[in-house]
Amino acid sequence: MKYHLVAYDALYRFCVQVFRGYGFDEDQSRRITDVLLEADLSGIESHGIQRLIRYHKEITSGMVDINAQPQVVFETPLSAVIDGKDAMGQLLGVQAMELAIEKAKQSGFGMVTVRNSNHYGIAGFYAMLAAKAGLVGMSMTNTEAIMVPTFGRQAMLGTNPIAFAMPAEPTPYLFDAATTVVPRGKLEVYAKRGSGLMPGWAVDEQGNDSVDADRVLGNIIGKTGGGILPLGGSGESTSGYKGYGFAMLCEIATAIFSGGATSDRIYKKPGKAEICHCFIALDHGMFGDKKQMEADLSAFLQKVRDSQKADGQDRIYIHGEKEQEAHDRVRRLGVPLNDKTYAELRMIGEFSGASAWLPKLQSMEE
Amino acid sequence: MKYHLVAYDALYRFCVQVFRGYGFDEDQSRRITDVLLEADLSGIESHGIQRLIRYHKEITSGMVDINAQPQVVFETPLSAVIDGKDAMGQLLGVQAMELAIEKAKQSGFGMVTVRNSNHYGIAGFYAMLAAKAGLVGMSMTNTEAIMVPTFGRQAMLGTNPIAFAMPAEPTPYLFDAATTVVPRGKLEVYAKRGSGLMPGWAVDEQGNDSVDADRVLGNIIGKTGGGILPLGGSGESTSGYKGYGFAMLCEIATAIFSGGATSDRIYKKPGKAEICHCFIALDHGMFGDKKQMEADLSAFLQKVRDSQKADGQDRIYIHGEKEQEAHDRVRRLGVPLNDKTYAELRMIGEFSGASAWLPKLQSMEE
Repeated sequence: MKYHLVAYDALYRFCVQVFRGYGFDEDQSRRITDVLLEADLSGIESHGIQRLIRYHKEITSGMVDINAQPQVVFETPLSAVIDGKDAMGQLLGVQAMELAIEKAKQSGFGMVTVRNSNHYGIAGFYAMLAAKAGLVGMSMTNTEAIMVPTFGRQAMLGTNPIAFAMPAEPTPYLFDAATTVVPRGKLEVYAKRGSGLMPGWAVDEQGNDSVDADRVLGNIIGKTGGGILPLGGSGESTSGYKGYGFAMLCEIATAIFSGGATSDRIYKKPGKAEICHCFIALDHGMFGDKKQMEADLSAFLQKVRDSQKADGQDRIYIHGEKEQEAHDRVRRLGVPLNDKTYAELRMIGEFSGASAWLPKLQSMEE
Repeated sequence: MKYHLVAYDALYRFCVQVFRGYGFDEDQSRRITDVLLEADLSGIESHGIQRLIRYHKEITSGMVDINAQPQVVFETPLSAVIDGKDAMGQLLGVQAMELAIEKAKQSGFGMVTVRNSNHYGIAGFYAMLAAKAGLVGMSMTNTEAIMVPTFGRQAMLGTNPIAFAMPAEPTPYLFDAATTVVPRGKLEVYAKRGSGLMPGWAVDEQGNDSVDADRVLGNIIGKTGGGILPLGGSGESTSGYKGYGFAMLCEIATAIFSGGATSDRIYKKPGKAEICHCFIALDHGMFGDKKQMEADLSAFLQKVRDSQKADGQDRIYIHGEKEQEAHDRVRRLGVPLNDKTYAELRMIGEFSGASAWLPKLQSMEE
């Protein structure tokens, strides 16, 4: 596939104008753009600018209510529940994590859940907001059901990602993982290539292991059964019930603790997403000297980095490192966009009156 | 292998006498026995009475200090750090979780970390203490390094289990999982059978995938490299870096937040275990009506139970159900012991002056 490169700053300005065009104010438009483009900066193309078309559809169809007035419906010094009233997921995410951070700064711990939200982008962004404030952060979200529980053939849980961040040197420790074995995007990539899936990724409509990308994706789109397996794969031999369990923790923290919809109900009511999130900020000063803990973590991570490599491997990665290195690369070289995404940006620019800001193509790579 | 059955109550009285024989008082002996035999009651043989020989060695060698005076070295209304001073892991575990529960009842949230402890048994026991108190509970422990990080060939993290419990009907939701793909005990079972391991479980001393049970176990015992893979398996294709990340969260919550030893240092100092734990209790009343949340969780779990089964499967399990069903069976039929374990109990009984309480064999099954 052909990729064009566009300058990050130009793409940022364009996105802000697009969201202003929909009716968000300048501050809101910047907040949404910050989350969206953080994915591209981190090399997570699946969650970045190529999803603008999805947000475009959800905003213009009214699924996202740009005038929503989210409401704190329950609150204690350590916690809050926000009814998102169908607001933009990224705005709710930032608002909720900022509230969790404020509570953690006051009391040591803050945990805020959100119901009736929309897709909020990458979970890691919100965990990092806490890390940037010198705290430990966690964020989770449920999503449309796509994970088939162990021994099942019907998707009942979402990809249900769990993200965790803590300040460390030289870069913060940032773990951000779907609790499915792979994201849906990976199946799509394999389907486009025409190659088979890897065993242990998915099951067909009968609940049998399947490496047939078209069949599995067709079933997911048609909601005719099957789906993606939990982290740990099929059955019990490689412990798929553990991924299914981590997904359930995410479901409890997001849907149950917010009084919202579980993954099996997401996108089921016409015109509503009903996604739920959870945000945690914790001041590790509650366990003593923060700088010492951060130094201890950094030293352990360095030990892991320096440990012996497998045959043929020259590097052991720490979670968050690849993303940090992508940042430097994308800021220097530009954001890669394929033809399809660029055409979508052109259309979206025209719709929202932001055409003048459409970023210019800088160069092309195969 | 031949299994004998012994009555649960008789085994319980014997264990209490054994621990009294080492010098623990009646209350301590009961606490330790409660944790130990909860594993047998739950059908988790690997962590139950067959491990008494291990505790026997650690107590009689002085690695476990029966006169230890654990000390709270840092405390806030929401948190505490306990220096375990090499006390019995089960006693520290119960003490720390009880403190976390007390804080959660006062403030909504309690998190207690422990350093310089010993093996504490099954993580799920402590999470369930919180659930029995009407709260949400979590417990984690680091362990001797046995997990090889993605692209490595040197064990740097432990099996690092994460347990979570929440009240629900008809049984509490209880998730308890090592973040390795399988526990060491599973390799031992396959080695005894003389069969190969499953692909994705372990790597050899070069970091290459290996299904050779003897070679992998030999390397683990000799500390000559290799070990067990993280949940998600080898390399990146089935997301082994996610299991490695969950293990790192456990390491941060246990070792970093207690100022204790990370898994790579466990059992390295002569005569010291230096294991670290973490205990969390959370009052979900901080998010509204607790009974409603428990009903919502129970309803969702029932939906998952009732969802369509894979071809050839007739049941989808909820985490904790198998353990609850084993409880009923073991209390009725007795605890299964193999010949080797029974011989160990006889020896331990003689050593600790508890021979008169050695439980009688009730029957035998193959």
